[in-house]
Amino acid sequence: MPVYQAPVEDTLFVLQDVLNIEKYGNLPGFSDASPDIIKAVLEEGAKLCEEVLQPLNQVGDHEGCTRNQDGSVTTPTGFKEAYKTFSEGGWGGLSIAEEFGGQGLPQTLAAIFNEYVVSANMSFGMYPGLTRGAMAAIVKHGSDAQKKTYLPNMVSGEWSGTMNLTEPQCGTDLGLMRTKAVPQEDGSYKISGTKIFISAGEHDLTSNIIHMVLARIDGAPEGMKGISLFIVPRNTLNDDGTVGENNGVSCGSLEEKMGIHGNSTCVMNYDDATGFLIGEENKGMRAMFTMMNEARLGVGIQGLGIGEVAYQNAAEYARDRLQGRALSGAKEPDKPADPIIVHPDIRRMLMNMRTFTEGARAFVAWAAINGDILERSEDEAERQKSSDLLALLTPVIKGVMTDVGFQTAVDAQQVFGGHGYIAEHGMEQFVRDARIAMIYEGANGVQALDLVGRKLAANGGRSLITYFGELDAVIAASKDIEGVGDLAAALKKGRDDLEAATGWFMQNAMTNPDNAGAGSTDYMHLMGLVAFGHMWVLSAKAAQEKLAEGSGNEAFLKNKLITARYFMERVMPDTATRLARISSGSESMMALDAEAF
Amino acid sequence: MPVYQAPVEDTLFVLQDVLNIEKYGNLPGFSDASPDIIKAVLEEGAKLCEEVLQPLNQVGDHEGCTRNQDGSVTTPTGFKEAYKTFSEGGWGGLSIAEEFGGQGLPQTLAAIFNEYVVSANMSFGMYPGLTRGAMAAIVKHGSDAQKKTYLPNMVSGEWSGTMNLTEPQCGTDLGLMRTKAVPQEDGSYKISGTKIFISAGEHDLTSNIIHMVLARIDGAPEGMKGISLFIVPRNTLNDDGTVGENNGVSCGSLEEKMGIHGNSTCVMNYDDATGFLIGEENKGMRAMFTMMNEARLGVGIQGLGIGEVAYQNAAEYARDRLQGRALSGAKEPDKPADPIIVHPDIRRMLMNMRTFTEGARAFVAWAAINGDILERSEDEAERQKSSDLLALLTPVIKGVMTDVGFQTAVDAQQVFGGHGYIAEHGMEQFVRDARIAMIYEGANGVQALDLVGRKLAANGGRSLITYFGELDAVIAASKDIEGVGDLAAALKKGRDDLEAATGWFMQNAMTNPDNAGAGSTDYMHLMGLVAFGHMWVLSAKAAQEKLAEGSGNEAFLKNKLITARYFMERVMPDTATRLARISSGSESMMALDAEAF
Repeated sequence: MPVYQAPVEDTLFVLQDVLNIEKYGNLPGFSDASPDIIKAVLEEGAKLCEEVLQPLNQVGDHEGCTRNQDGSVTTPTGFKEAYKTFSEGGWGGLSIAEEFGGQGLPQTLAAIFNEYVVSANMSFGMYPGLTRGAMAAIVKHGSDAQKKTYLPNMVSGEWSGTMNLTEPQCGTDLGLMRTKAVPQEDGSYKISGTKIFISAGEHDLTSNIIHMVLARIDGAPEGMKGISLFIVPRNTLNDDGTVGENNGVSCGSLEEKMGIHGNSTCVMNYDDATGFLIGEENKGMRAMFTMMNEARLGVGIQGLGIGEVAYQNAAEYARDRLQGRALSGAKEPDKPADPIIVHPDIRRMLMNMRTFTEGARAFVAWAAINGDILERSEDEAERQKSSDLLALLTPVIKGVMTDVGFQTAVDAQQVFGGHGYIAEHGMEQFVRDARIAMIYEGANGVQALDLVGRKLAANGGRSLITYFGELDAVIAASKDIEGVGDLAAALKKGRDDLEAATGWFMQNAMTNPDNAGAGSTDYMHLMGLVAFGHMWVLSAKAAQEKLAEGSGNEAFLKNKLITARYFMERVMPDTATRLARISSGSESMMALDAEAF
Repeated sequence: MPVYQAPVEDTLFVLQDVLNIEKYGNLPGFSDASPDIIKAVLEEGAKLCEEVLQPLNQVGDHEGCTRNQDGSVTTPTGFKEAYKTFSEGGWGGLSIAEEFGGQGLPQTLAAIFNEYVVSANMSFGMYPGLTRGAMAAIVKHGSDAQKKTYLPNMVSGEWSGTMNLTEPQCGTDLGLMRTKAVPQEDGSYKISGTKIFISAGEHDLTSNIIHMVLARIDGAPEGMKGISLFIVPRNTLNDDGTVGENNGVSCGSLEEKMGIHGNSTCVMNYDDATGFLIGEENKGMRAMFTMMNEARLGVGIQGLGIGEVAYQNAAEYARDRLQGRALSGAKEPDKPADPIIVHPDIRRMLMNMRTFTEGARAFVAWAAINGDILERSEDEAERQKSSDLLALLTPVIKGVMTDVGFQTAVDAQQVFGGHGYIAEHGMEQFVRDARIAMIYEGANGVQALDLVGRKLAANGGRSLITYFGELDAVIAASKDIEGVGDLAAALKKGRDDLEAATGWFMQNAMTNPDNAGAGSTDYMHLMGLVAFGHMWVLSAKAAQEKLAEGSGNEAFLKNKLITARYFMERVMPDTATRLARISSGSESMMALDAEAF
């Protein structure tokens, strides 16, 4: 069975030393998050993930979910009890306001805890994850009555939630949506239609499921401008708030899929189900978009979470497996062979994984802190800045972290050789599970187009200007620190490639928008390299400063500096290739007739 | 169900126009392979693959193999009949000499047909594939009596074959092998031990299975120098040549694995099984190594084969799926949305796939022709040259083609969005199946080390000198052709990066061999980029010449030139990043303590 130990020490380093979370003490919730509290929360969360969730991960993959004849869905053995433990611990409402029964802690803590959950059991984590998404919609767009009706039971884990967007003919292009909403005299709507790929759509973990459903009100405008968002509980609520009859909502079938077998992916049928408008008529897409930063951060975290657990298992295997001898001479001559961790190519894979997981952990925390500022700060300029940075970098978080997270799982599997291909060791499950994160919540190509086609240009390019300002400040503050200055110089090179790529778009995409589309994925990854480089310079700077002070775990801090250096030497140089690709434009890419493929 | 159409037109272009197969008419077997014969063989083979093998591919994945209580193994529905059809068509012995019942055709044709088989049904293809490997061992190292005893029944498909190398404690490091061979008075040996990951180890397709088993003769030297190769038939042979009793060979269990479910991957137990030495005592590794070029080419072809079928399905889906509008304005305004093939990022993935499949097809044929020259030419200098080139490039064929083949399957799945994650469409099967090719027959990191640690230095670096000679001749012959010259210049740049990387190794690996190991995978991929670039310049040159003559399919030839250009603009630039990584050395890669991971 795979091993997993939550990386609490690294999380604390990121929060306290790299990002100085204490300086946000003025934000609501942050004053409750003292270093001691954070440490206690993370250690308690780690225990839950390691001891309760992780042992169910292979069970979930092996058993999958079962749709029973009555349309109900049974989750894998142990999931129901684990969900109860999870909910009773208050983990479902970590960052939800106390008035709704939550803990009121920073979103940052919830995001970090979410990494641990994904590492332990991604499929399980999707049940509370989708509930969090649905709660976010209600918090931001629901009426006071809706908040009061739904949130407390969702926070407590009594009810769960889902998001219903996709239909057979509409995935990325939600304008093609057909699910209908017919207004009723009492102000409610009758919802009818079929949704597909609905994660956690039906299951036995909770007594009710609150579906957030996008649909088109009878007579609404065509396309994206005619879509509204509805709350559709699976079971109606009685006047006393108890759960009533089925509301015309049923799971038509479960999808048979590559991975995340422990999560129920449903075809959902709505047959004159009673729904309640949330937010304004025909403004459903806007309601969805405001939730997207958080949802996409959540999917990006899936890349990190799977990457981390896959890395840990690869590292353990590489220390234990004896095969061959070191190129520089036997390292353990008394054994029949050396452990494979002596081989540079094994190290290469482990170090690549490590630059990703540690860099991504910092990146997630950085983004989540900006999310907290955006939600909680009273300083408008500060909110604006965080909003700009998040808007710009959310597609990067989602697209790059899931691409590299998948690659990390593939590399970790590779370390196991043939044993990685066998189900028993669990490595191939990580690959299958990680794969979905590149697809859902906006396929990574769509993220790239969002970045290049929308985010770069928004508000006269203010987001990117703000981001370059951040980068330049970090580079300036680091360039004269011994042992960090050359890392900052490497970041500067990447940043300059990013600027050059942006300039190329400005010169070439106006006349032919395909020139932007053709470079979009490379641009997203180029920005991702810079974003990771940014985190590595910050991390190296923090490590160097602590070493100079003589505080902290010396070995840990020195390893940070080495890993930062490895990142700059081995990962960062890819910005040059990305720039070369972008600058080649769209001509040869678009030249073939569709029929020629 | 996935579609598949064997790319016969492209194969013929590669053989006839790019590689001028007719100029090898003096080699045995090639005179029988006139253009008409080649076309007829490929078309007949295509039909078999499309109509018989491909419809069983999802069946095989879904059903898998079953081990029965008596230890026998049942293959998926339809495999037995398909194997009969395959064998009766003479496809199992395409390139085996006529004296043993084969067709005596060039290996090149067998390699190309193998691509089609893999595309149609990789798991099925492994049964005849392993038989081919076992036959190759007997052809090259067996006695005349052994050839006569085994080959005719293996060629006819009456019997099949396997290769038994891996044991639980020994994969890459075969020196750790424990399976024992005890000499008997009659010259035979009693073989005892356990082998794992034995593809096609037990099944119901044939009346006997001829296992090629590596084992250590009692008292043999430690390590690799004490390993011998044995023929161990599952059932003994009666004096009249008929199949007798079980020979102490049994399948202990089937591995549960990520993919290739249609192939039986067995734990094989040998319990005083009678085995017959093949080749010399303690020279088993040498016997294995001489087969490796062919086996590794075969696995490289798996990368190509899966890449091709995945590409074809992605292209079809991209033409059919309506979602969103082209950046440059609606292309099909009368439809609710444009087909997704209008989107540059979809094109990017399709063009990447195409540069791989077409480039790899040429690379496979180029390598296979060199294999035929090596086996069949009477000109020693010509044989030497082919031997040098094959030795150098075999790790590249195996390592790069399986890495990029897997990436191609992943990209093809991505084109399908959420539908790619669902089993029904078959795209996720391609990803799972393709994954194994990066691992078996020497994991790709081992290929890279073979290239850098062994092949580069062998014979004073003669192989690389020969290869640079080939490249330089092609560049010189192409540089002044309009429309090809700038492609040749891009190849020159890649070739120079390869030379610089080689020079870096020469200067830095003597003092610290980890500097070679640290750059090995990047070097392998750098050489792969150059090798593909080589094929693309040859292909572009051939296309341009035919266009100038006004012969051939004009659209096809123009698309070749466009795709060659795309390769040089978008794929080739990665050589610079590879070189930068290599030149950074091993210091930060190797600096952490093993316990720090």
